[in-house]
Amino acid sequence: MIGNGGESTGFEVGIVVPKKKEWNFSRVRGFHCVDSMVMELEKVGLMVERIQGISDEFIKIAAPVETMGRAAAKLQLKKMTSIGMDLQFEWDEREAFVRQPDGSLFSWCERLSCFHHIIYGIVNKKRSKATMWLDGKEFLWYPNESLLKRMESEGIIKLIFPLHDETNRKHLLRNWAFNWLDFTWQPIDEIYSYFGTKIATYFSFLGMYTRWLFFPASFGLAVHLFDFGSGQIFVLPVFFVFVISWAVFFFQFWKRKNSVLLARWGINDTFDSVREKKDRGKEMFNKIPVGEEKSMLQREEWFGHLLKIRNDAIVVFGIICLQLPFELTYAHLYENTDSYVIKYGLVAVYLLAIQYYTRFGAKVSIMLIKSEKNAGRESSADSLVYKVFGLYFMQTYIGLFYHALQHRNIVTLREVLIQRLIVSQVLENLLENSVPYIKYSYKKYKALRNKRYEKGQIFKLAQLNSRVEKEFLKPSYSASIGAELEDGLFDDFLELALQFGMIMMFACAFPLIFCFTVLNNITEIRVDAFKLLVMFKRPIPRTATTIGAWLNIFQFLIVMSICTNCTLLVCLYDQEGKWKLEPGLAAILIMEHVLLLIKFGFSHFVPEEPAWVKANRVQNVAKAQDLCSKQLLRSISSMKRRRIE
Amino acid sequence: MIGNGGESTGFEVGIVVPKKKEWNFSRVRGFHCVDSMVMELEKVGLMVERIQGISDEFIKIAAPVETMGRAAAKLQLKKMTSIGMDLQFEWDEREAFVRQPDGSLFSWCERLSCFHHIIYGIVNKKRSKATMWLDGKEFLWYPNESLLKRMESEGIIKLIFPLHDETNRKHLLRNWAFNWLDFTWQPIDEIYSYFGTKIATYFSFLGMYTRWLFFPASFGLAVHLFDFGSGQIFVLPVFFVFVISWAVFFFQFWKRKNSVLLARWGINDTFDSVREKKDRGKEMFNKIPVGEEKSMLQREEWFGHLLKIRNDAIVVFGIICLQLPFELTYAHLYENTDSYVIKYGLVAVYLLAIQYYTRFGAKVSIMLIKSEKNAGRESSADSLVYKVFGLYFMQTYIGLFYHALQHRNIVTLREVLIQRLIVSQVLENLLENSVPYIKYSYKKYKALRNKRYEKGQIFKLAQLNSRVEKEFLKPSYSASIGAELEDGLFDDFLELALQFGMIMMFACAFPLIFCFTVLNNITEIRVDAFKLLVMFKRPIPRTATTIGAWLNIFQFLIVMSICTNCTLLVCLYDQEGKWKLEPGLAAILIMEHVLLLIKFGFSHFVPEEPAWVKANRVQNVAKAQDLCSKQLLRSISSMKRRRIE
Repeated sequence: MIGNGGESTGFEVGIVVPKKKEWNFSRVRGFHCVDSMVMELEKVGLMVERIQGISDEFIKIAAPVETMGRAAAKLQLKKMTSIGMDLQFEWDEREAFVRQPDGSLFSWCERLSCFHHIIYGIVNKKRSKATMWLDGKEFLWYPNESLLKRMESEGIIKLIFPLHDETNRKHLLRNWAFNWLDFTWQPIDEIYSYFGTKIATYFSFLGMYTRWLFFPASFGLAVHLFDFGSGQIFVLPVFFVFVISWAVFFFQFWKRKNSVLLARWGINDTFDSVREKKDRGKEMFNKIPVGEEKSMLQREEWFGHLLKIRNDAIVVFGIICLQLPFELTYAHLYENTDSYVIKYGLVAVYLLAIQYYTRFGAKVSIMLIKSEKNAGRESSADSLVYKVFGLYFMQTYIGLFYHALQHRNIVTLREVLIQRLIVSQVLENLLENSVPYIKYSYKKYKALRNKRYEKGQIFKLAQLNSRVEKEFLKPSYSASIGAELEDGLFDDFLELALQFGMIMMFACAFPLIFCFTVLNNITEIRVDAFKLLVMFKRPIPRTATTIGAWLNIFQFLIVMSICTNCTLLVCLYDQEGKWKLEPGLAAILIMEHVLLLIKFGFSHFVPEEPAWVKANRVQNVAKAQDLCSKQLLRSISSMKRRRIE
Repeated sequence: MIGNGGESTGFEVGIVVPKKKEWNFSRVRGFHCVDSMVMELEKVGLMVERIQGISDEFIKIAAPVETMGRAAAKLQLKKMTSIGMDLQFEWDEREAFVRQPDGSLFSWCERLSCFHHIIYGIVNKKRSKATMWLDGKEFLWYPNESLLKRMESEGIIKLIFPLHDETNRKHLLRNWAFNWLDFTWQPIDEIYSYFGTKIATYFSFLGMYTRWLFFPASFGLAVHLFDFGSGQIFVLPVFFVFVISWAVFFFQFWKRKNSVLLARWGINDTFDSVREKKDRGKEMFNKIPVGEEKSMLQREEWFGHLLKIRNDAIVVFGIICLQLPFELTYAHLYENTDSYVIKYGLVAVYLLAIQYYTRFGAKVSIMLIKSEKNAGRESSADSLVYKVFGLYFMQTYIGLFYHALQHRNIVTLREVLIQRLIVSQVLENLLENSVPYIKYSYKKYKALRNKRYEKGQIFKLAQLNSRVEKEFLKPSYSASIGAELEDGLFDDFLELALQFGMIMMFACAFPLIFCFTVLNNITEIRVDAFKLLVMFKRPIPRTATTIGAWLNIFQFLIVMSICTNCTLLVCLYDQEGKWKLEPGLAAILIMEHVLLLIKFGFSHFVPEEPAWVKANRVQNVAKAQDLCSKQLLRSISSMKRRRIE
């Protein structure tokens, strides 16, 4: 039970160690390290299950809720209480804390960090070193040394990874991944319980985005199908204004939805950032800084900003000076070549080159980010997203811009758009699932082959019987640009952002594109769900509570699309290329400015947080203050008195 | 002493009652109401001083700090404690609270609300009604009725108003209003202690704005004086870009400065809004709303938004349909009239008409705002500012736009700009001080004349000897659009905003204008200081901690100025009126877009709050949570247990 009754967690963490080999059983003195690890794990109150795989042994761990709770208290975990304030967890006062939507006391993310705290907290409590052995290897376990860290550094523990929970996984598969009839509806709360905030936020965003896409899709279809007679000339501008307003509204409402989700999951966003920065703050300040100290802090802050600006400048410079000429050359060559052979050759060379270029860019970005002082992992990840997105932006759109500007021919542009959209979206959906499957199959094949060699049974087809071993062989959900700061969500969001940019920036050229996108996204929801539930190891949950940097990228794309659509309209209505500022052109320019105004003015009208969420939060803080006001005051004044004495 | 030693406040509140007339002394039974009021005031622990003026009697009130503190505790005032959290004030734990920069326990705003609480809190504690009389008038003071409210409604108390503190006022006059040599420097902390947050924020803003204006002023001077040879054609665009960037930077840095000021004064901005909304929240929510209740709340919220949008639409509609044609007609008539007599007549009619129009607009706006649900007085005031500013914006600039577009002649535009600037700024500075003085003199003359008639001494020149009577006769610091929601700061900020709009929107037409503005603003600082210290009653302090709606208005003016300057540049470089999108024009359009991008992108680079302020605040919250964590948890769980039982 995944903490359902509050009794104990499921077997949610797996440790992979080599299989015990019988022939060197009693040769050495000391303890067999895997055996003693299991003993130690049981001693700290965990439930352990050992499973013999084909080439490795798997140790599955579960924890009674009390063990978990004591670990959480030791970790000084802060949790939402029923008065809405985040307080440090105490096992004895567990009733004060808000339970998860599925009834368990800890969220998946909290459970995992407790597991980690418990298993890495196993140290040698004796005064003397203990001798450990495995497969002829011997090592000493020093006092106060963490056993698991030692075993990891000795190479005995191959991996510690979160396990899928079979009951919940099957339930989700049935209700979510295979439930195509629900279109855009998804069981978000269950996804949150199983995968954590960030992934649930992604799916919630994807669902809402797809739902909202129905509006421009139907408008686009109408524009495509019907002839508006004398009003035809105004159809595209009206569509353009509609689409931009739609996008602005959508993102404002998404922010509201996000804050509602967080309120429902009992996550205090404001205090989340507090938590992250608390430790840094502690070192730096014990009182309000004055004079010399303050100016030092300010200098430090500005130095940080300048560093960030410099890094961004390097990235922009790199993109403009290296990537832009390359992309333009490719687009130009591709356009002006007639031979199909050379064209395919070009595409092959190009695809190879951008693979390397992207990886190189990501590496440089990560290097740059390391020199920045970001206030936590999520902040660094956001910084990376901005930098790498610039690269992808150029890669995806420069060819389209080239087309649009060189040919100034709507029909060619439409063709290219359809090609790109179908190629990028359909292919990606296929690759997303097939690449992990191929990886998994290859690994499985290798494992089985090794086994066969060992046993000498060349012709017997071995089978993987244990579920945990299958999971171990599955690839992990990681980003294509490197696993350091981002996980697989990077690729999923990138896909979404590039799609959004494509449909928005060329909305006027091809209104029907929105229909394709709706179809694609409905598929995307289920395909991504299937991917996460079946194709990958269970991902490590992240603490981020919003879509972070991507929100700003989407906003940027809206502004870009205002500009590009205006250009498109100018091209459409001024086909002779006179570029005169005639009334029509002037009207377009005015429209552009009005739209930009709407874009930036609208946020004043719709608050990002629904009133009831805000009022609730605010009231909670006030209640908490009232509850402990006197107590606090007394301790402050006594602190002061002591200082004076 | 204005709370300096913490011993007692100065005489900071005055009550005006009619002078006792001797001849009806013992005619009636019961108590003389002024005498008994003074007795009651002394009974609740206030210090009272009675001063006989020429036609009225003035009762000055001071309070020992303990009386003040007990009143604050009864008011449930929240104050910043030394751990940085706002907690309810308790007299016994007063050491826990942060002291003001001048060493006193309460700020001026807090003192005034305590005074009000104390004096209006005097009720008839006996079971029976008491009979009161004054000048033959009799009334009954019912049990549990507030004496002062009764006396106000009987018309006996003419006014209760905050008094100037002579020591501090003289000190400020010397160090601030007459201290011209300091240019833009001002003793902001002392201003804060004496006038409260909002006025101190205004002067801090004015000082910083003037200081920053030196940059564009010197650039403008250079543009005006030097000939850049072949580079001359690029001078204006460069100046334009510089000015816009300057403005964007300035406002970002102002936000930082504002948060630093608040940190120094011990004001928790985040909790300020909490405080305001707490009472509303209490009625509405006792738990997280669900289902029907939630949807009702949401409906209510959206209804509020729609109401606001409707009101804004009414105002915009009114401005465009009523004011715009009127202003254009005036501008057109004025332009096309040659006779000076008719011109002067036009100006006179115009000035009269806009007076009425503005007042009418303000009344309509206030009426509209009353139907809105704003979350407190400052929020309503902001809403009023937006609505009324639209009116003034049209009034001030439409003539200039008309000039700029009709003549497309830089020289005429410059002349008009100088005229307007000098007329509006110099005249306003003069009026600001002379109008209150004339009002004061008239009132004084009237009071003395009445006196003389009474005494029958027709030829003796009576003198006002008491300071408090002089203050009573001074006008109060109120807004020209009505005193309901705004005070005199509205006019001061309006002047600043209109000036800012004028210099920014026509920056390219006349770079020298920045020099005039610097000179004007240096004068403005001292003139405004003099006005507040000498010409008016001491203003009632307001709780607002930022410049509020004006910040958004300034930002809007920046965006507007990007557009107008681009138009100006087009006019300058395309004098034949071909309006062709030639390379030059295209370059300007590109520049415009880049600038808009900078405008909206820059806020991502510079955070609005310095890192040390934020870290400090964050750490304070964390510390407070740690301090009372266990205590809180226990009370929450016991609450829950009780509920279950």
